[in-house]
Amino acid sequence: MLEPIISTVDIVLLIIQEDRLCVTLSKRDKEPYANQEALPGGYIHAQDDRDCLDAAVRILQQKTGLLPPYLEQLKTFAGAARDPRGWSISVVYFALVDADLILSANHPGLTICAVDALRRLPFDHNDIIAAAVERIRNKSQYSSLPCYLAGETFSLPRLQKMYEACLGETLNKVSFRRKMEELGVLETVEGQTETAGAHRPAQLYRLKSEFKNQLKLLVRGL
Amino acid sequence: MLEPIISTVDIVLLIIQEDRLCVTLSKRDKEPYANQEALPGGYIHAQDDRDCLDAAVRILQQKTGLLPPYLEQLKTFAGAARDPRGWSISVVYFALVDADLILSANHPGLTICAVDALRRLPFDHNDIIAAAVERIRNKSQYSSLPCYLAGETFSLPRLQKMYEACLGETLNKVSFRRKMEELGVLETVEGQTETAGAHRPAQLYRLKSEFKNQLKLLVRGL
Repeated sequence: MLEPIISTVDIVLLIIQEDRLCVTLSKRDKEPYANQEALPGGYIHAQDDRDCLDAAVRILQQKTGLLPPYLEQLKTFAGAARDPRGWSISVVYFALVDADLILSANHPGLTICAVDALRRLPFDHNDIIAAAVERIRNKSQYSSLPCYLAGETFSLPRLQKMYEACLGETLNKVSFRRKMEELGVLETVEGQTETAGAHRPAQLYRLKSEFKNQLKLLVRGL
Repeated sequence: MLEPIISTVDIVLLIIQEDRLCVTLSKRDKEPYANQEALPGGYIHAQDDRDCLDAAVRILQQKTGLLPPYLEQLKTFAGAARDPRGWSISVVYFALVDADLILSANHPGLTICAVDALRRLPFDHNDIIAAAVERIRNKSQYSSLPCYLAGETFSLPRLQKMYEACLGETLNKVSFRRKMEELGVLETVEGQTETAGAHRPAQLYRLKSEFKNQLKLLVRGL
């Protein structure tokens, strides 16, 4: 007879706040680690969820009030030592969203924390977040992934800030704009500009509809 | 009360045979799909396996007789519809090995099949193999991954064939050699050459020991 294995899904929900890559934590309402902040997660419900992505969407909605535009499987963390209840599997997904979405959802029990300033979290959640940050850093080099952080419409300077926060480095403005053109995922929002501080009004852009749920890859990185 | 979930590991073990990327299939000894060929796989044993990689190594040894040099997590396939026994999770790993290793292990019940000539396999194993081929195709563009297919020592023409089989395209010899130099994972085997057909003897190479269990990435792809 096989020992039962705990089957869960955890979600790394990332935003940019004050130009820093941040993760969304949720206060746990049950033991183990009750009242501590951890990644939003939960059990797979075999009777309700058709598959793992289904479970991730359900859990994310319950714990954060959000339906993200892009949810990607990160990796599965599994073993005897990661959960005090016993041998457990966590299939981990990550999502990048506009910070305003989280603030306006105003879901109870959520905290936003910069990924480079996390204290010790329950389970192996620090390792999970580190793996997500590494994946995002790699993917941002050659894909449209950071566009999901910028909201519905955004200026190119704002989008560049999103890329820089993901990559952890500053980018050259001219080559960034050339790469965005090469990527070909953006369209201008006619007649709309953004005025920020002392700068002249900046053209607003949005993701072309065909790329709202699909990444586009650059042949050569940024 | 939560319904129990079936927790398994499956392994996509790939080799090159006759210049084609091939997968190793294992005859199933139990229902469902008894006596049919499928990916080597099995239940996670919570009492024996410390973690998922542990389970993958154990199952791969039992089903193929091999201990692979490089085992990477591919993705987790999970849902209500993929296994007739019920809601199931399969954490999938992939490994690339020298074809001679499989032939010399001579393990009972194994079949080698080209990935582009597979018939309908049990469960979602066709989808799993397709995902592995896509991952390998992408990673071969900018990493040392195909080196694991070439065996302990190999000539550059042989290694180029491995890359070409993974990428599904022919490569320019001069730029391939330049990229291998840039990658910096190979060292020459002093005094050893390979004589193949009418060609002049070719220098033999091997992976530097520090890269035997670790991929190296190119900044720019092939």
